[in-house]
Amino acid sequence: MIWGAAAKPWKWPRSLPLTYKHLQFMEKNVKNQPIIIHEVGLRDGLQVEKTVVPLEEKLRWIQGLFQTGIDIIQLGSFVNPEKVPQMADTDRLFTQLIASKTKPATVTLSGLVLNEKGLDRGLACGVEMFCMGVSASDTHSQKNTGKTTFDALAQIIPMAQKARQADKKVQVSVQSAFGCGFEGAMAKERVLGIIKEYLAAGIKNISLADTAGHGQPEQVEELFSAIRELDPAVEMTCHFHNTYGLGLANCYAALQTGVTSFESAFGGLGGCPFTKVPAGNVSSEDLVHSLQRMNIRNDINLDKLLEVARMVGTYLNRELPGFILKSGSIVKFKQTIS
Amino acid sequence: MIWGAAAKPWKWPRSLPLTYKHLQFMEKNVKNQPIIIHEVGLRDGLQVEKTVVPLEEKLRWIQGLFQTGIDIIQLGSFVNPEKVPQMADTDRLFTQLIASKTKPATVTLSGLVLNEKGLDRGLACGVEMFCMGVSASDTHSQKNTGKTTFDALAQIIPMAQKARQADKKVQVSVQSAFGCGFEGAMAKERVLGIIKEYLAAGIKNISLADTAGHGQPEQVEELFSAIRELDPAVEMTCHFHNTYGLGLANCYAALQTGVTSFESAFGGLGGCPFTKVPAGNVSSEDLVHSLQRMNIRNDINLDKLLEVARMVGTYLNRELPGFILKSGSIVKFKQTIS
Repeated sequence: MIWGAAAKPWKWPRSLPLTYKHLQFMEKNVKNQPIIIHEVGLRDGLQVEKTVVPLEEKLRWIQGLFQTGIDIIQLGSFVNPEKVPQMADTDRLFTQLIASKTKPATVTLSGLVLNEKGLDRGLACGVEMFCMGVSASDTHSQKNTGKTTFDALAQIIPMAQKARQADKKVQVSVQSAFGCGFEGAMAKERVLGIIKEYLAAGIKNISLADTAGHGQPEQVEELFSAIRELDPAVEMTCHFHNTYGLGLANCYAALQTGVTSFESAFGGLGGCPFTKVPAGNVSSEDLVHSLQRMNIRNDINLDKLLEVARMVGTYLNRELPGFILKSGSIVKFKQTIS
Repeated sequence: MIWGAAAKPWKWPRSLPLTYKHLQFMEKNVKNQPIIIHEVGLRDGLQVEKTVVPLEEKLRWIQGLFQTGIDIIQLGSFVNPEKVPQMADTDRLFTQLIASKTKPATVTLSGLVLNEKGLDRGLACGVEMFCMGVSASDTHSQKNTGKTTFDALAQIIPMAQKARQADKKVQVSVQSAFGCGFEGAMAKERVLGIIKEYLAAGIKNISLADTAGHGQPEQVEELFSAIRELDPAVEMTCHFHNTYGLGLANCYAALQTGVTSFESAFGGLGGCPFTKVPAGNVSSEDLVHSLQRMNIRNDINLDKLLEVARMVGTYLNRELPGFILKSGSIVKFKQTIS
């Protein structure tokens, strides 16, 4: 069949040697690795909302999440309560939840910290896992923290070490790792340069956050593969926004590349207020639904997760962007893949 | 780091030998294969709409599509005009467009036919490429055509041969290939059984249509790889709906597996009226945007394509589901992948 001249050849594949490499890696290392879901709706979902959700309502959602089997729940961020009133009750959320003893032993409570003061607040109220990071984009970093990437990194690494010394789980991230709405593409070397600093400081739990939603699957495979080459013992986390429709495609690429931890938000809520085109996170229900269609994490209670997303939608009084909320789950239809 | 007991191991990867196989195939066969975009908005997009779009409006959209560099445009289907009034002007669309001599030489005009009568109408009005197929699901097949899969296949194969004898391009499909809203999962053997009949009849241009949107990327890779094993000379087309948010993830999986032709609809319009949960096709703009982010088909004019989608949205007077329509294109930001 002769197709038009407009059909330019597609040169497959630029990353073939890498693909071979990570298949080999998979055979050796990723077999039987657990896949982790990290719910960030209470933080990345709510920080962009005009509504300040009261603590009691958040607690209802969290109790709902406790019934889902989700592994990590991010309760909020430790930022200036006057600047981000949506997060003003984060300390109290931790204190009350820990005092209530309602948290299942399998659940880890995480909190995002941006500076030393936030870290001290988190240490004081019982955060179990600290998330912190820098943006690969100087422009985004300045808007988000008032610091360049380099200055932010110089602050974050001692903070991560302090949290580890307090026997806390620590995850460090590179935000805008796949591109920035202001600056455009991020040089791979720039992202890897930050990762090298993290690894040199002994921090192996590393997250790439696609804050602007610029990531595409080929790039996701390339970047995570490059990180694993730096240190095969790295634990990799991904965080995608669905700005350009590629959220789940990027999750699939990440899964193929050995990423084991996935950040997502109930209902597909969210978006960083300091990005150029804010858009929702990958929806937790859509992610879990996709995984369960592949027979991964069948233990998570998707119906309970959908209930939480519906509670959030009802409270915020609008339709959330998640697909499964609209279309309903089809995990009951088991695949016939041999 | 010790994660909760809820985190069940993910057994990677069930399809590893296949993955190796198709990488080897890629090296030999897919290099420099052109990637084809087949716009089906005028057919699969409009058939579910309550509005009957007048011929003059369709012609405006088609003239817009002619400026995009899209390879194949499906003008409509040859069905009973009383049952599907949205498609009643398909014959006239072909006749007028061919008479107007406005079609670029690089564009192929396709039409969908369901029976012999439709084929004869298509042959009479100048269809260049005939698309036809059967549903893997008996229930969906009965609802769509009044026939079982087996009876529909017995009708389609002679039709395909007749079209080929008339020197027409022919593409045969399996609808509901990845699952059916009524019946659930489709046995892989059932889908491959239909494909074998097509191949035995000498028809090598084969499309898998995910009519219900049940496909997931692992399954997409598995099924297309199995087809290629049946006949390495097969030309493979995919058609995904975004019902559960996996449309672009499935396209990426298809691309990795050697699929060269992609069906999509402007604005993400569409959905088969005889499915259980109708939902839009993968949006043409989102697909082209994703490909161009991977430096594939940079020759397509995405701005012109977005203009067409906006014309369609304006005419139908509602927001269409496509992502790039809302977020805007970022193809200007070139990737830095080595």
